[in-house]
Amino acid sequence: MKLVYFNFFATAMLLSSFIGYAQEQLPGDITADQAQLIVNEANRLSKKEGVVVNIAVVDAGANLKSFLRMDNSYLGSIDVAIKKAKTARYFNAPTGEIGKIAQPGGAIYHIEHSNDGLITFPGGVPIYNSAGYIIGAIGISGGTIEQDHDIATAASKIILKK
Amino acid sequence: MKLVYFNFFATAMLLSSFIGYAQEQLPGDITADQAQLIVNEANRLSKKEGVVVNIAVVDAGANLKSFLRMDNSYLGSIDVAIKKAKTARYFNAPTGEIGKIAQPGGAIYHIEHSNDGLITFPGGVPIYNSAGYIIGAIGISGGTIEQDHDIATAASKIILKK
Amino acid sequence: MKLVYFNFFATAMLLSSFIGYAQEQLPGDITADQAQLIVNEANRLSKKEGVVVNIAVVDAGANLKSFLRMDNSYLGSIDVAIKKAKTARYFNAPTGEIGKIAQPGGAIYHIEHSNDGLITFPGGVPIYNSAGYIIGAIGISGGTIEQDHDIATAASKIILKK
Amino acid sequence: MKLVYFNFFATAMLLSSFIGYAQEQLPGDITADQAQLIVNEANRLSKKEGVVVNIAVVDAGANLKSFLRMDNSYLGSIDVAIKKAKTARYFNAPTGEIGKIAQPGGAIYHIEHSNDGLITFPGGVPIYNSAGYIIGAIGISGGTIEQDHDIATAASKIILKK
Repeated sequence: MKLVYFNFFATAMLLSSFIGYAQEQLPGDITADQAQLIVNEANRLSKKEGVVVNIAVVDAGANLKSFLRMDNSYLGSIDVAIKKAKTARYFNAPTGEIGKIAQPGGAIYHIEHSNDGLITFPGGVPIYNSAGYIIGAIGISGGTIEQDHDIATAASKIILKK
Repeated sequence: MKLVYFNFFATAMLLSSFIGYAQEQLPGDITADQAQLIVNEANRLSKKEGVVVNIAVVDAGANLKSFLRMDNSYLGSIDVAIKKAKTARYFNAPTGEIGKIAQPGGAIYHIEHSNDGLITFPGGVPIYNSAGYIIGAIGISGGTIEQDHDIATAASKIILKK
Repeated sequence: MKLVYFNFFATAMLLSSFIGYAQEQLPGDITADQAQLIVNEANRLSKKEGVVVNIAVVDAGANLKSFLRMDNSYLGSIDVAIKKAKTARYFNAPTGEIGKIAQPGGAIYHIEHSNDGLITFPGGVPIYNSAGYIIGAIGISGGTIEQDHDIATAASKIILKK
Repeated sequence: MKLVYFNFFATAMLLSSFIGYAQEQLPGDITADQAQLIVNEANRLSKKEGVVVNIAVVDAGANLKSFLRMDNSYLGSIDVAIKKAKTARYFNAPTGEIGKIAQPGGAIYHIEHSNDGLITFPGGVPIYNSAGYIIGAIGISGGTIEQDHDIATAASKIILKK
């Protein structure tokens, strides 16, 4: 058993050694520090507002970067918050704007069936850096759609102040 | 083969022994006795009503706790009943209330695409304990939406009478 | 809104009316009473054995019929118990027998990738009626594989005693 | 449209008002503060160790509570870290212990096909509170399996020091 473990270990070391010469993350992508700053700001704003929410931040590749579920918030909002963040980055727009044209008869009705399910009501917005580039997105779920959208928008801008 | 099984048996016993000092279930979560009481009451009420349904109870973590499919009820209602129970717990509200704002043009239209599929018509309700805390949820599927909702609501309250 | 509800109601009534002339369930399939009898017996035997398990019963069509998660049993065993029951009915054999030939190099290695995932270690067994026909299956998860198998086998036979 | 939104806003407020009298989270479950403390400690330990990882914390119901992906860590480790945390809570044991009996020929070989996929190599461990109860689990992915396990274990204990 020890030998087997050793083999795994060696392979894992090999994999890890890639990091040394090939930076995984693109220059300019959202950093863990920025993502945590945004999550903590959304947490603070939600407490101030008296609402409990789920907070998800994805990177420029629409992959989960940081997440926090506030105490007593909806269990169902875990997935909604993550899908809002992904939807906002998938189409580089606030989820509420996508929802306006995803209604029955709308131009992109049924787009919600793509990408393992989209959420197209307000609460997800792109995250911009100071140069105006989209570097990720944030999704908030748990309050009213207006609260979710406002908290997401305000929290996403905290990185511009630093 | 017997020897191999014996070795793994010993390890499995080790795993089981964790239960001894670390209760898996949080104090205050719905118990198996409560879940069965609710399922049996829903079964009784459905028979009295002359309708055949699927009955699902989930715990506070939205995980399946007890289930019964009555004879001659819809096969398709297995998943509907489970999803109704989960939906009610995910958002701490009767599924019919969620459905009201999940219509086209509604605030949370398309939320049904989250969480591997939600059911947002009546028949799922949270289960409250005598202190007013939500400890799980019940989903009923097989009758009309009014019957499903009424049976779910009445059955969920049987634990308050004991 | 009232009118919309009325329409749903009418459609649901139409669906329900099928039951009147077309019994959904095949004659000879496991009944809800039998399934509950088996689940309760497995519950009783597990308590006697001092082990906490998840108990799943499926019908002749391999669809969930009854389920119970005992207090403090593994959350991960919900799906394992259901998959054991389904696997036993899918191939009309105890899951442990299937597992013997599903090992690397075995005749049906990788069969576990079919049917949305099979569980091929002991704990699932077919349920026979007094005429020797398979009418469903039971899956137990939470104890050692020997305990799970023994409880499943003993509980499945309770319906022969009535 | 504004009017419609207003109506649904009112209903959404109604939903939110449920939180007022029915605490969503069971007393004794892991809190957001505890989860963030653990994530931050895992982040700190990983930096000290010179390794970049994904960090996931789930609650007692195996639902995601907090998450962080360190810069330059594997994209593929997002799901591995989350599945490690869930697996550890599903079976109340370190993932590496589960993996020992999930090898070919082992007692629970193929269990990894349950629960939408388990991860059964080291890096996931239960989180205990000071009374010895399991209140959640942590999963680490990105280093060697030994590093992942050690960081997970050490980080999970930070809440005992407060």
